[in-house]
Amino acid sequence: MLNFLSGALLDRCSNLRRDSEWLRVAFHDPAARILCYCNGEPLIRGGVENPEPIMLNGSLNTEVDISRAIFLGVEDGAPVFAVDSQRTEDFQSGELSAGGVPTDFREIIALMSRPAGALLAYGRALLLWHARHPFCSLCGSPSAVAEGGHLRRCTSEACLAEHYPRTDPAVIMLVVSGNHCLLGRQASWPENLYSTLAGFVEGGESLEDAVRREVQEEAGIEVGEVVYHSSQPWPFPSSLMIGFTGFATTREIRLNDSELSDAAWFSREEIATRVKERTLRLPRPVSIARRMVEDWIAQDG
Amino acid sequence: MLNFLSGALLDRCSNLRRDSEWLRVAFHDPAARILCYCNGEPLIRGGVENPEPIMLNGSLNTEVDISRAIFLGVEDGAPVFAVDSQRTEDFQSGELSAGGVPTDFREIIALMSRPAGALLAYGRALLLWHARHPFCSLCGSPSAVAEGGHLRRCTSEACLAEHYPRTDPAVIMLVVSGNHCLLGRQASWPENLYSTLAGFVEGGESLEDAVRREVQEEAGIEVGEVVYHSSQPWPFPSSLMIGFTGFATTREIRLNDSELSDAAWFSREEIATRVKERTLRLPRPVSIARRMVEDWIAQDG
Repeated sequence: MLNFLSGALLDRCSNLRRDSEWLRVAFHDPAARILCYCNGEPLIRGGVENPEPIMLNGSLNTEVDISRAIFLGVEDGAPVFAVDSQRTEDFQSGELSAGGVPTDFREIIALMSRPAGALLAYGRALLLWHARHPFCSLCGSPSAVAEGGHLRRCTSEACLAEHYPRTDPAVIMLVVSGNHCLLGRQASWPENLYSTLAGFVEGGESLEDAVRREVQEEAGIEVGEVVYHSSQPWPFPSSLMIGFTGFATTREIRLNDSELSDAAWFSREEIATRVKERTLRLPRPVSIARRMVEDWIAQDG
Repeated sequence: MLNFLSGALLDRCSNLRRDSEWLRVAFHDPAARILCYCNGEPLIRGGVENPEPIMLNGSLNTEVDISRAIFLGVEDGAPVFAVDSQRTEDFQSGELSAGGVPTDFREIIALMSRPAGALLAYGRALLLWHARHPFCSLCGSPSAVAEGGHLRRCTSEACLAEHYPRTDPAVIMLVVSGNHCLLGRQASWPENLYSTLAGFVEGGESLEDAVRREVQEEAGIEVGEVVYHSSQPWPFPSSLMIGFTGFATTREIRLNDSELSDAAWFSREEIATRVKERTLRLPRPVSIARRMVEDWIAQDG
């Protein structure tokens, strides 16, 4: 089963996007569609009951500067782009009156079709990367969009460094010990919410190294065997969640760093009972964390 | 079995490295050790027969500017740092005469102890990231090292953006079909060298999405089921290789992009025979690619 936000149906056309003339023609194709975002949040119509992403039609694209458009790929023969604006008004006047309102993407993932959610996640990941990287990290000069937004190149002739979009791998792990799993919570989270442990992979680590280090740091538990579960793009802003089951070799919890305010072992029965009693909340259904917990409960020993 | 370059034995002390006073004391601990690099390549003594990383002793650390030292962690009670210089001479005069010569890291991985290789890989990943990120990508001002080298912070009071080290996830996959596996080669590679397909994960992709896209782009083969193998940090300069077996659902190879100059299906027997005849070379023994091919051969149908 696919995780939410993965499995976008379009062809990314990685080769074609290097051809600026092909891109220009695609952008003005009457069949082209442009996903609209405001500060990384998609413009949505239909409210939270029936959210649908706003797509500008290719015939309106003369109003949009192509250098601001990120090429996502081709779906059903139609080139698909994404554009971000920091001002909602850009999409609310004249030809570009797209309708819709910028909507917290996290809140609507579960309410959209899987392919629409995956497409919006992809556009969001790239747009947020551009927003954070207008300058060259090597020399400090402005950098410019290239290859349909899949590259930024330094504008200084003395530098011309190339910078590719950044994706931050993070491990997320359900640590288990017999009929119990380890869940933790951060002080800032909503009441009663517990989730799997997680953390970013550091330089010079395998994924398995990162799983063991994070669990040791956050909960003082030693992990032996580590088994892959699945993965999920998580553009908040640029994570790639890589899920594992970790088999604990110790039981005593020590909160070593300040990451968690609590961590505890939960049996399958306790999770079921406490969720029913509303004294325990699990992470949102679209998250890989939730799926890992549910898959483990379904295994039943 | 661990992949080469993974499983470093030290404690990264992620919490302590945020404490600059603790770091200063650790740096001047007589037991402290400093790994020395020149442009990301480790200083090595003992030649390629018996390579050993050069480590400066903590008592010499007054000669080194602490702001240039990356804190790696604590091993056997000794704080471990890494320092890079663009000039070999920095380590060849006066107190700092460390001996050794900058050595292509890739060439000596197989010749070192596993923990020494993993430690050098970790230091290299961080040092190369710093070398590529002296400026803030958000505003173009200089950024400064913080948290023992695990963070850079913009020096502009109006910005103060924080930038974390970057790790680029890449998928690497052995695509199989019955008794055959798919190997490819790039035009620039040494004669007869074939390896598994690989490529960087893009924004908005799960790992499984990336495996299927890369194989389709590079060889025109459709992949169905995707099964995790293992992972390996690969600091050339900042990759994390994530290995999968991909089960092909088609057989006809088409080189869709310009990445590969050839790709072909190889049976287990053909690999064994051609390696013996020296008409086929597999990737270097320290690579996850080699391990994936060897594991598949060992499964034997």
